[in-house]
Amino acid sequence: MDNVRIIEIKKSVLDNNDKAAHELRAKLKADRTCLMNLMSSPGSGKTMTVIRTINALQDELKIGVMEADIDSDVDALKVAQTGVKTIQLHTGGMCHLDAYMTEQGLIEIGTQDLDLIILENVGNLVCPAEFDTGASFNVMILSICEGHDKPLKYPLMFTIVDALLINKIDCAKHFDFDFEQVEAYAKRLNPDIAIFPVSAKTGQGFDVWVEWLRNKVTDVIR
Amino acid sequence: MDNVRIIEIKKSVLDNNDKAAHELRAKLKADRTCLMNLMSSPGSGKTMTVIRTINALQDELKIGVMEADIDSDVDALKVAQTGVKTIQLHTGGMCHLDAYMTEQGLIEIGTQDLDLIILENVGNLVCPAEFDTGASFNVMILSICEGHDKPLKYPLMFTIVDALLINKIDCAKHFDFDFEQVEAYAKRLNPDIAIFPVSAKTGQGFDVWVEWLRNKVTDVIR
Repeated sequence: MDNVRIIEIKKSVLDNNDKAAHELRAKLKADRTCLMNLMSSPGSGKTMTVIRTINALQDELKIGVMEADIDSDVDALKVAQTGVKTIQLHTGGMCHLDAYMTEQGLIEIGTQDLDLIILENVGNLVCPAEFDTGASFNVMILSICEGHDKPLKYPLMFTIVDALLINKIDCAKHFDFDFEQVEAYAKRLNPDIAIFPVSAKTGQGFDVWVEWLRNKVTDVIR
Repeated sequence: MDNVRIIEIKKSVLDNNDKAAHELRAKLKADRTCLMNLMSSPGSGKTMTVIRTINALQDELKIGVMEADIDSDVDALKVAQTGVKTIQLHTGGMCHLDAYMTEQGLIEIGTQDLDLIILENVGNLVCPAEFDTGASFNVMILSICEGHDKPLKYPLMFTIVDALLINKIDCAKHFDFDFEQVEAYAKRLNPDIAIFPVSAKTGQGFDVWVEWLRNKVTDVIR
């Protein structure tokens, strides 16, 4: 069975990555730059959330964005229209970013003049959860279209994030999404998780989310 | 840089997997059993699609279902209610199934008495596209909630499937989803791809999809 061999290799890769991620996090702290790692399924609304968050905070914080994608730059082009510094990271088929790839992106974008860098990870609820990018904290988006059973099916992702945005609430009446149930499932895995129902399309719920993010960034950079 | 080493290992893993997948496909053909590998993002409606497909075909075909999941059995419990033989495959944190894992599942479910086995892969648009499971053919679901730019961002998945179901069309008026654009993007990658707009919730479009599937199964098992 090849499976066992794959997992052993993976363990050593993960151990090396954890060490690099811790070093990167310490370096960012020393530079007074906060790195937010944003993860979700494909199509849950990461890019629209990033743009609305930038619009809310760019007068008070110097923001940069690193858009990770396997093979396109459609998101980076959209985000760049906000006027913040934006770079595209191509993973070359890889399903996640690790601390080494993140560090390459940070060298490219430059941390000196930035308070907050938003890393939009590859759309995937599995692999990005396994690889610590070195980010100051992790945030995920679940859209209500995906269903409230997702914490049962992708438990690691819900365990390693500091905040969960539940997006597309403007469409809630068209989907059988149980907010209380998803909260109960998520908090069973991660009692400290902060949960924000939002609509990146209409802006509903963004004031509370942005306030949380502002405080989190301040903790890191002050 | 660790990245280069990871990719080299991956190549040998993929080569071994391809060989195992080809052998498995030949064995299935000899057994007159058709294996359909169904892939999608989390929450695009795989399980509801499987259930509605079973309901349409179980009077004429002997069907079995293998539900792959990282860590739950919620889907298998739902599918088992249709009365068809259903087993749960736990990937133990792995983000995809390969041909070895699929073969283990087939030994468990037994191919002798089944015409069609549906494999519901892990919800992920990246990794499952890289690993040939040995299935007779591949199908993916994209829900309209995910957006029409997905072929640009996950090109390999759209390249390796025989059919694309565009699900949740009952909600189309609430989302800015451009059907012509997604079709153009998908056909640029994969000119022979068959595309079926459907709603697993209402049944809309299922007659055309089920007819395609019936013909595909017949090609394999007769």
